[in-house]
Amino acid sequence: TNRLQALVPRIATPIRNLKGTAPGLWIEKGKKQIICLPGVPFEMKYMMDNFILPKLEEKLEHKTFMAIRYLLTTGIAESTLFDQLGNIEELLNGAKLAFLPSPYGVRLRLTVEGTSEKIVHEKIDELEQKIRVHAGRYIFGTEDDTLEGVIAKLLIERGLKVAVAESCTGGLINHRLTNISGSSHFLDIGIVAYSDNIKIKMLNVKKEVIRKYGSVSLEVARQMSDGIRIISGANIGISVTGIMGPTGATPTKPLGLVYVSVCDEWVCRAKVFRFGDDRLLNKERTSQAALEMLRRHLLGIYDDD
Amino acid sequence: TNRLQALVPRIATPIRNLKGTAPGLWIEKGKKQIICLPGVPFEMKYMMDNFILPKLEEKLEHKTFMAIRYLLTTGIAESTLFDQLGNIEELLNGAKLAFLPSPYGVRLRLTVEGTSEKIVHEKIDELEQKIRVHAGRYIFGTEDDTLEGVIAKLLIERGLKVAVAESCTGGLINHRLTNISGSSHFLDIGIVAYSDNIKIKMLNVKKEVIRKYGSVSLEVARQMSDGIRIISGANIGISVTGIMGPTGATPTKPLGLVYVSVCDEWVCRAKVFRFGDDRLLNKERTSQAALEMLRRHLLGIYDDD
Repeated sequence: TNRLQALVPRIATPIRNLKGTAPGLWIEKGKKQIICLPGVPFEMKYMMDNFILPKLEEKLEHKTFMAIRYLLTTGIAESTLFDQLGNIEELLNGAKLAFLPSPYGVRLRLTVEGTSEKIVHEKIDELEQKIRVHAGRYIFGTEDDTLEGVIAKLLIERGLKVAVAESCTGGLINHRLTNISGSSHFLDIGIVAYSDNIKIKMLNVKKEVIRKYGSVSLEVARQMSDGIRIISGANIGISVTGIMGPTGATPTKPLGLVYVSVCDEWVCRAKVFRFGDDRLLNKERTSQAALEMLRRHLLGIYDDD
Repeated sequence: TNRLQALVPRIATPIRNLKGTAPGLWIEKGKKQIICLPGVPFEMKYMMDNFILPKLEEKLEHKTFMAIRYLLTTGIAESTLFDQLGNIEELLNGAKLAFLPSPYGVRLRLTVEGTSEKIVHEKIDELEQKIRVHAGRYIFGTEDDTLEGVIAKLLIERGLKVAVAESCTGGLINHRLTNISGSSHFLDIGIVAYSDNIKIKMLNVKKEVIRKYGSVSLEVARQMSDGIRIISGANIGISVTGIMGPTGATPTKPLGLVYVSVCDEWVCRAKVFRFGDDRLLNKERTSQAALEMLRRHLLGIYDDD
């Protein structure tokens, strides 16, 4: 095949499509690269990331070296994170730092340029360490890590099991945890407890506690997490209960009010959050807050440090 | 304000940001529109859809009229759908039809042009009706409808409750159903039954059935859907069990093998699906297949018609 391509340089090379049936085409003419890809977005994206970008990189003639690294934070607002880093110009010392916020947290993009691969890697390692000194507790991962992937690794390493009782997130936390291949090692059961009755019947939440505090309360969150832990036999029980909107708010319980509880055999930590008025964003933010509480629980990072 | 803007035409008007804090800016100079928006994608998108595009449309001078309509299908491949429509040129009669596939199904985009608003609306209504004659059973909605939203409406109208027992989707189906505001009217409980033990203990699946057929089987799917229906007291029970990958395949049970069961008091319908080898896509496709089986169950659309 290589000899044939050398003889007929303008012939198209097919690009295999591992996510669908339509192949791509790669035509090379001198230094020009013509690449044709199928239109289905996730097929195109997969081929781009896994085949085309690496091939193009091989063909590039580098002059200056550049290192890019992503540090992933959650549970801290962009402005607070900025303040935590102290004197930013001193910290960066010529490097670049971008703050990339999303409902899941703030990604930090570190960019360093230099005259050799060794230098830029040393520089970026140093910068990462400096940032970790200031904001390490909020950094759950790097590059393409996901919070659920980081948690899965911790749970599997330690042989721990987790069980989640979800009211307001309606299944999203269990969905995220089971996105990780191997999740059956740390997850046997999850319960979506959407009504008061189910909270009482399935999770042993006390009727009087719901009557006294309401189902969106710290007390109910605690009982839900203890309940799911006990009925599942898991090491750690997690629960969320809240008001996702657009309806359901009361004078004392506004939209976006959420309680999360994480407990094990010895200790139960429950926290209140105040999110916004967008139902889907509230579900996402609540799932992220609960998973981050789990990560900090596993790593012994506490709020009162 | 209008008089002031007429005097100082280049002054910027702030655009309110309902999803965040940074406002946008709109500067108008003659016929030129300069619009500055914040960089957070979901904030920018919301302002674009809800404020900027409608405003821009007001400013446009229409010459020809155009009507666009989306018909949303699922459970049918693009090529099969094309075949179902018969003689496509005769059907279209000058209109345009685009097939837009995704893991959730194929969206059909109908485009009609004409000399008055009345004409294009009549034409597009007619085209929609013709398409519905050929492929109506696969069309679950139009425009921005979601399958879960369409199902929620049917369930609420009829006062029915549903409960979903999820193995391989791990919470995604319950998450999608609870994305709909008002889902507490039709959903009290969902169970993620990820291990054999939980299927036996919580859903009353018979141990011998798992031993004989394996937990990924039509028989286990049937028992799971019956189990969740009975313990929840819901009118309809749904279950999914399958192999999402990348691991877990056996010589007789390949990656992407999925069983879905939907049952009510009188009847139980279970179906087998064969998806691919991408874990997250498999979860999405399985959730879509299960919700579509529920929709067809509610509307009395059966495979053997």
